[in-house]
Amino acid sequence: MLSKKNIMWHEGKVTKQHRNSLNQHKSVTLWFTGLSGSGKSTISVELEKSLHEMGIKTYRLDGDNIRHGLNSDLGFTEKDRYENIRRIGEVSKLMVDAGLITLTAFISPFRKDRKYVRSLMEDGEFVEVYIQASIEACEERDPKGLYKKARDGKIKEFTGIDSPYEAPASPEIHIDTEALTIQESVEKILTYLKDKQYL
Amino acid sequence: MLSKKNIMWHEGKVTKQHRNSLNQHKSVTLWFTGLSGSGKSTISVELEKSLHEMGIKTYRLDGDNIRHGLNSDLGFTEKDRYENIRRIGEVSKLMVDAGLITLTAFISPFRKDRKYVRSLMEDGEFVEVYIQASIEACEERDPKGLYKKARDGKIKEFTGIDSPYEAPASPEIHIDTEALTIQESVEKILTYLKDKQYL
Repeated sequence: MLSKKNIMWHEGKVTKQHRNSLNQHKSVTLWFTGLSGSGKSTISVELEKSLHEMGIKTYRLDGDNIRHGLNSDLGFTEKDRYENIRRIGEVSKLMVDAGLITLTAFISPFRKDRKYVRSLMEDGEFVEVYIQASIEACEERDPKGLYKKARDGKIKEFTGIDSPYEAPASPEIHIDTEALTIQESVEKILTYLKDKQYL
Repeated sequence: MLSKKNIMWHEGKVTKQHRNSLNQHKSVTLWFTGLSGSGKSTISVELEKSLHEMGIKTYRLDGDNIRHGLNSDLGFTEKDRYENIRRIGEVSKLMVDAGLITLTAFISPFRKDRKYVRSLMEDGEFVEVYIQASIEACEERDPKGLYKKARDGKIKEFTGIDSPYEAPASPEIHIDTEALTIQESVEKILTYLKDKQYL
């Protein structure tokens, strides 16, 4: 019988350290930030494929799996935009605790929001990956047609047009997608992860 | 250069199927439900240890890692209690997508809330684990002293005292912790997972 004396509340739980040991790699959040069209999604998708092929346990959070699910109750007011990033930060923290290399691909334009997410994590568990491209290059690429809509006034407060993007002052990784190919960008991040012994 | 033509939006992403194949087991949410003191936490902690020792990739969501983080903005109104369960459901869905056997340990007293979470998942990805013990047994165990507080009127709308617990009508797994030991309970769930070929 499950009597009071043999209920062992939260003793001997499986921890992040146990999971990292089983997976044979450290867990970390790779927080991709940059303008719409800078290449965040593309590079994070390709990076995840490379990591997966190496047997690394990964997960990728993006608009597709967040906006229609966990954050489906949020709109685009200032308060909701902050709450959007806060929840993504909290879920990333859980994913890191679960032993995963977690890739997040969101514009996340504000320094204070990114700083807040960093504050949730332990040292070394938040790696800011700044995906840089000029607004001109992003507008030329315009993969989702969003810049055109913003220029036509159909989207308000669009980052880079009528809402600011605050570039990271000292990101752990800085990728200029006007200078590097996708493959070179992926290699640069992999090299960082190996050098810092995440892998 | 990252030109428009070689941006491959969301093509060839790593999927749940790829992750399950790498992990060599299926991913699923084991949704523990039952009264406070029924044994949800104890059994889910012990089950996770057994799974981890078998090399299974797991994660466990409970009050400790949810209420102080993702759901720290929520209180205990009816609306907030629903939102609490909704978010746990959405995070569980992400964890299953990430390839993990996800254990959740929350009272989750209402049938409609559990039904909603089930509706988020694909067939077979939501396994309801009803941890049953009589209110008398739970109150006798009272591991967190909450029943005493509820009886003293210090906690309002406490499940089993002045708020209902709606037992599952047909849970996938039913554990009576007044009849089974912790180890027998864990074995029963492991047997289910093997029989249904999750492992």
